[in-house]
Amino acid sequence: MKLWDKGGTPDEQMDHFTVGNDRELDQVLVTYDLKASRAHANMLGRIGILSKAETESLTSALDLMLEEVRNGEFSIDPPFEDMHSKIEFELTERLGEAGKKIHTARSRNDQVLVALQLYLKDALSGFHGQVKALFDLLLRLADQHKDVLLPGYTHLQVAMPSSFGLWFSAYAESLIDDVYMLRAAYRVADQNPLGSAAGYGSSFPIDRDFTTAQMGFATQKYNVVAAQMGRGKVERLSAMAMASIAGTLGKLAMDICLYMNQNFGFVSFPQELTTGSSIMPHKKNPDLFELVRAKCNIIQGLPNQLSLLTTNLPSGYHRDLQMTKPLILPAVEDLKSCLEITISSLGRIQVNSNILSDPKYDYLFSVDTMDAMVQQGISFREAYRKMAAQIEEGTYEPDKSLNHSHQGSLGNLCLDEIRSKMESAWNG
Amino acid sequence: MKLWDKGGTPDEQMDHFTVGNDRELDQVLVTYDLKASRAHANMLGRIGILSKAETESLTSALDLMLEEVRNGEFSIDPPFEDMHSKIEFELTERLGEAGKKIHTARSRNDQVLVALQLYLKDALSGFHGQVKALFDLLLRLADQHKDVLLPGYTHLQVAMPSSFGLWFSAYAESLIDDVYMLRAAYRVADQNPLGSAAGYGSSFPIDRDFTTAQMGFATQKYNVVAAQMGRGKVERLSAMAMASIAGTLGKLAMDICLYMNQNFGFVSFPQELTTGSSIMPHKKNPDLFELVRAKCNIIQGLPNQLSLLTTNLPSGYHRDLQMTKPLILPAVEDLKSCLEITISSLGRIQVNSNILSDPKYDYLFSVDTMDAMVQQGISFREAYRKMAAQIEEGTYEPDKSLNHSHQGSLGNLCLDEIRSKMESAWNG
Amino acid sequence: MKLWDKGGTPDEQMDHFTVGNDRELDQVLVTYDLKASRAHANMLGRIGILSKAETESLTSALDLMLEEVRNGEFSIDPPFEDMHSKIEFELTERLGEAGKKIHTARSRNDQVLVALQLYLKDALSGFHGQVKALFDLLLRLADQHKDVLLPGYTHLQVAMPSSFGLWFSAYAESLIDDVYMLRAAYRVADQNPLGSAAGYGSSFPIDRDFTTAQMGFATQKYNVVAAQMGRGKVERLSAMAMASIAGTLGKLAMDICLYMNQNFGFVSFPQELTTGSSIMPHKKNPDLFELVRAKCNIIQGLPNQLSLLTTNLPSGYHRDLQMTKPLILPAVEDLKSCLEITISSLGRIQVNSNILSDPKYDYLFSVDTMDAMVQQGISFREAYRKMAAQIEEGTYEPDKSLNHSHQGSLGNLCLDEIRSKMESAWNG
Amino acid sequence: MKLWDKGGTPDEQMDHFTVGNDRELDQVLVTYDLKASRAHANMLGRIGILSKAETESLTSALDLMLEEVRNGEFSIDPPFEDMHSKIEFELTERLGEAGKKIHTARSRNDQVLVALQLYLKDALSGFHGQVKALFDLLLRLADQHKDVLLPGYTHLQVAMPSSFGLWFSAYAESLIDDVYMLRAAYRVADQNPLGSAAGYGSSFPIDRDFTTAQMGFATQKYNVVAAQMGRGKVERLSAMAMASIAGTLGKLAMDICLYMNQNFGFVSFPQELTTGSSIMPHKKNPDLFELVRAKCNIIQGLPNQLSLLTTNLPSGYHRDLQMTKPLILPAVEDLKSCLEITISSLGRIQVNSNILSDPKYDYLFSVDTMDAMVQQGISFREAYRKMAAQIEEGTYEPDKSLNHSHQGSLGNLCLDEIRSKMESAWNG
Repeated sequence: MKLWDKGGTPDEQMDHFTVGNDRELDQVLVTYDLKASRAHANMLGRIGILSKAETESLTSALDLMLEEVRNGEFSIDPPFEDMHSKIEFELTERLGEAGKKIHTARSRNDQVLVALQLYLKDALSGFHGQVKALFDLLLRLADQHKDVLLPGYTHLQVAMPSSFGLWFSAYAESLIDDVYMLRAAYRVADQNPLGSAAGYGSSFPIDRDFTTAQMGFATQKYNVVAAQMGRGKVERLSAMAMASIAGTLGKLAMDICLYMNQNFGFVSFPQELTTGSSIMPHKKNPDLFELVRAKCNIIQGLPNQLSLLTTNLPSGYHRDLQMTKPLILPAVEDLKSCLEITISSLGRIQVNSNILSDPKYDYLFSVDTMDAMVQQGISFREAYRKMAAQIEEGTYEPDKSLNHSHQGSLGNLCLDEIRSKMESAWNG
Repeated sequence: MKLWDKGGTPDEQMDHFTVGNDRELDQVLVTYDLKASRAHANMLGRIGILSKAETESLTSALDLMLEEVRNGEFSIDPPFEDMHSKIEFELTERLGEAGKKIHTARSRNDQVLVALQLYLKDALSGFHGQVKALFDLLLRLADQHKDVLLPGYTHLQVAMPSSFGLWFSAYAESLIDDVYMLRAAYRVADQNPLGSAAGYGSSFPIDRDFTTAQMGFATQKYNVVAAQMGRGKVERLSAMAMASIAGTLGKLAMDICLYMNQNFGFVSFPQELTTGSSIMPHKKNPDLFELVRAKCNIIQGLPNQLSLLTTNLPSGYHRDLQMTKPLILPAVEDLKSCLEITISSLGRIQVNSNILSDPKYDYLFSVDTMDAMVQQGISFREAYRKMAAQIEEGTYEPDKSLNHSHQGSLGNLCLDEIRSKMESAWNG
Repeated sequence: MKLWDKGGTPDEQMDHFTVGNDRELDQVLVTYDLKASRAHANMLGRIGILSKAETESLTSALDLMLEEVRNGEFSIDPPFEDMHSKIEFELTERLGEAGKKIHTARSRNDQVLVALQLYLKDALSGFHGQVKALFDLLLRLADQHKDVLLPGYTHLQVAMPSSFGLWFSAYAESLIDDVYMLRAAYRVADQNPLGSAAGYGSSFPIDRDFTTAQMGFATQKYNVVAAQMGRGKVERLSAMAMASIAGTLGKLAMDICLYMNQNFGFVSFPQELTTGSSIMPHKKNPDLFELVRAKCNIIQGLPNQLSLLTTNLPSGYHRDLQMTKPLILPAVEDLKSCLEITISSLGRIQVNSNILSDPKYDYLFSVDTMDAMVQQGISFREAYRKMAAQIEEGTYEPDKSLNHSHQGSLGNLCLDEIRSKMESAWNG
Repeated sequence: MKLWDKGGTPDEQMDHFTVGNDRELDQVLVTYDLKASRAHANMLGRIGILSKAETESLTSALDLMLEEVRNGEFSIDPPFEDMHSKIEFELTERLGEAGKKIHTARSRNDQVLVALQLYLKDALSGFHGQVKALFDLLLRLADQHKDVLLPGYTHLQVAMPSSFGLWFSAYAESLIDDVYMLRAAYRVADQNPLGSAAGYGSSFPIDRDFTTAQMGFATQKYNVVAAQMGRGKVERLSAMAMASIAGTLGKLAMDICLYMNQNFGFVSFPQELTTGSSIMPHKKNPDLFELVRAKCNIIQGLPNQLSLLTTNLPSGYHRDLQMTKPLILPAVEDLKSCLEITISSLGRIQVNSNILSDPKYDYLFSVDTMDAMVQQGISFREAYRKMAAQIEEGTYEPDKSLNHSHQGSLGNLCLDEIRSKMESAWNG
């Protein structure tokens, strides 16, 4: 059963090709379609298209269906091609004529637009919660290990002293940037598109302020063409925010994989968080972090996939836009699980507290040595040349007592300042 | 002359390979390096590393150099490999020992980090200004042509009535989404990284609050490792905001190219804004908009280019990061010129005011016809079937008087609401 | 049950995260794992690791399992995490000790490497077959409609006369380029990697020439590290060939969507191949071609997704590489179905044979007019100015009798030459 | 001076926007435009459009201009917007009326198409030469260091013994895959497009077989629409081949950066090939390889940039296609220099021959130990458990004498087989 069925017998092959896994994806989105349908029904009642009784029977039926979805009792199976046709069928089946009226002054395009935006609002605010949880964990770990030194690398060459305190809280502070992006994407999604109909509005006197308030949108996409133009764009900008988080998470995972490598040996994890090999019994592989890295790298490509899909399409709806769903929905799940896994694993990280006793790290302290000379009045360039000579001659002996005290340095992590920056990141 | 020159004779080929067009790019960034150097010098004075006299001579020399840059009298040529070595050379040449001291407690990595962020802040806020100007123009055009009807397409098929009012203001409202992204990227760039040194801070008691205030940053990237981690990331997130604008601009350009096509014939431009053909004298080609589209599509790929560059690099500086400059700087120029060209051309657009008299557009009104039936009490599905039959039989006659009055529709463009949403987009 | 299970109880969440939809994907690959296992067993027999009886019982059991796969009776369900553990379990269950020996001198890494390459060889040669079928159809249509004229556009502006003959056969000839790429990717995949074990070979005296011949590979990836390095790379290069086809197919679909638009009206399709609208009864939407275009555009991004996944990974296996499967396998299915749909729909295309009678296309003939002047001895530039003047004054009258006779032009499509180029494209 | 100048005064800003850096890029392409013009002139003579004298004067003038280009005496400066207008101007200036006739039966579109393909043929065959040189170097290094052992990693964990012989020759064999792709792209470019004119052929009786032979193309793109459709596509497929090489080169660079890291310490380079730090005198940074990696990663994104540019453009020329030049030309230069630098540096690599004496690498031999047990009749799974127990108890002692003898393994590098595969890669 298709809404646009005019009696002809569509090609079976074509049906398979056009519907794809839409039913499965709609199983995730149907909650939002039902909520938006509820707001739409109430609005139709308010403007007199529906009687009070019709409105109440529709909203009750929709509430019941929402309950069924929550209980896993609402499935979108053939002959229904999508959630929209399923919902309309159920309403008609349950309520007769009143059920058919739900489709007044809206279009499927409209429905999927609003459902996707409600879904993305939930997804983005869910990411915000997870990012905050990871942030808190990283700050806790930074504080806990703030005195454990770590070699700092530049060009992957031993460079200057760092610490687990610096390393953990660096990722925490870096996540704040991602929250700025998340917040922007959220604001983009937080504009009610319902009322766009097929992309050019409706001749019914619909009340868009009312549905905006009912669904909890901060504002509306006023222009009905702009609302439709949001299709693809809201997904793309949400994908950018997701790619931003994924970049941070992937980099952390790369560091962890490197630090677990035996040549580094900086961190380890309990055996149950590592994986063995079918032919190398001694292996403790960082599969979890490799997969976090891999999935995050793929998510980094998501905005590009959405760009390729939408680039050079003139304005107005195109069926191409249906394909944003199979791109964005699984990516949301993947990023969510990457955050979950990172949070649950990172809490069990084991830190090697004796790294810098290895002489290969002695050069880490050369800059401090040189700076001490400068503070005694030697010019920088001369200190540099003197130091270089000592190293060349093998006479260099480091002073490992560190005294970095400025904001954000080894001895002054500014965790409170970072925490308070995060607190204001979602707003303002 | 290179800062790290230890006396060996580097391979000439290697020199060419490693420096690339950095000198040319640094010609753009040098203003920001000088400003940051000025703040750094003042800070070194404040904490007693420099005497008052040294500080003053350094800041005066830097001010003079800023003046020289403005006048086009400051060039970065070989043997200098970049702006950093050129600036230090000039300071030493002009001031002797005091000049050498500018490099105390910072590193080139630090300098390029802060220069890039200052540059990106300017670029992003420049885009905000241009986007606002385009927005204002689009609203003006929307208002001017609000009564001129246009066919609305879905699936590129004639669908429902639209208008130039809707079309122009749709792009205006869509630009607000881009401002949300711009604002987020601006907040990311607006955190002072200076003090990160080589990525792990310094043993000098530098005062980062002071340089933050001096350079007008809203806050600082506290953690010195996080500050360094911003390299590549600030560029990438700025690129996302740019890609967001580019997506909107490119779509507008696609619409214009299509509407200028003789089969559509919706808009035209004065001859001096179109281009001829070497063998087809009648051609009036939309080269400007084709190039806007092309450049914008390439800019849409910029975040991906930056991801490919930085993905899977562990934390700490890598020379790879030098390559963000030749990616981001030309793209900033390109987007700026695309906005300029769009603004200056769009103001001269000529609108065809008689489009809908062509009978092929009669079907545009079928939905209104059907809705009118529904408002007379016929159910939606029955109205749909009745209407379809008329069309099938060729008996359909449209009523072209439109009465769309809800928010954001043909008869109610909500331009003031859109304007006020834009006003609050950069904040909050 | 996992091959590397050392007795610990792995975190349930981690299990879900690491296995993902691997079981479902392995359902597609298992045929190839079984075939490679068969070759491996025979080889182990040949070098004396397995007795003749063991070899025979193993190959029989594997043949039976291949039969079960064909009949849909072989499923990879939990507790098995993948096809490899399932196959080994079944062999051990069915054959006891002999079953365990199949894993001698190989590793899972090895198995998935060879299975993927066998799979990709099949996929690529399948694409070759489909591309050939589409090519033949396009040439047939070109021949059938060779005299029907079509406006040719440049800059989307009416430019010069074209024809359906030119248009159909242009896509045919363009597909030959894609076959060159397909062939290259096929050669990359056609090198036996089996014997790489975990990526560094084995201390058993395996006979790789033997397995190469048994599995029908043209040659082997000799170096065992190179064989392992093929993981990710074979997928990426195959994806490039797929992206090449997708580019051609997507462009054809774009043309069709444009030509079905009422402003063009060049082609149409029977109703059962188009889609209606839920609120616009007159619509006949080109959903099939929009979805071909959309899916092909996403496939164009596949090589980039694989690059993001693999970029900057040092040599040696990483778990990240598992994620090439969920990228490449669904894309293979999508491209296959896009080719199927294009072939089956395009055969039913309806061509408008009276396009050029519309006066807006008169200018198409201006170049021919001008060329005729040149052939009468007027210089090109003068003819150009004369022609331009006529057009300006509205006195231009086209001579629509065309006489393009050179190779590849309107009157001389060279279909045989194109056909013979295609024939040699897969070889040489 | 523009070819299409109809007398109007084009906007200055527009001129700057549309021409961009085309003149600079055309300085590279002009050789190919001249060669193609020469072939075109000869052909026009052959078919009687030009007299014998005209043909001779044109070809002589073009030969002279080719000479001027070689000597750096031919510059494309304003008022010329591109090489095409410059060449035509020069011919007219030097030869009068005969000069103007060169433009008969062709278009600028045609000219840039053929020039780009000739350029890409040269570029791709140049890459083939460089890849072969790198291949030879890698095989030489593999042979030279074939007995120096190296730890093999999986999941970045110490896994199994490898060797410099395996490592160097793995990259050599991997380059063969890239040659397959190069060869395919070369075949795509090796089809003469000249004669397409504006994309729809010409009414002149041009002889395309003749120009095909004159310019040394293997065949022609027969269909004139297909020839035009090659614009963007030839660049994109060439970019894929380049991305293929870049992937291999970038991975090698990543390995080298990691191996130069002090925690690995596997390889080093003479000081003149490394770079120092402005504040860390002991640093010897692998800048060359970091830049090779970075540039190669950006090149990996090139096909995607070209896809974004061309996706969803209907057939026929669009001005967008001009933008393939600033994408592809600099990338060709970059890849060329990356290959140069890699070849010239890699020859001076210094290999640490005593890596495996460090006890942390003892576990490398566990698989061999276990395999030996299996060869003595113990089942694989039991050997695995026994081995795991020894490792757990710390009683494991490796036998470091290796006996890997199968094709492509440590003791049998098959360098001759690899060499002979490379030899046949460009053909067949």
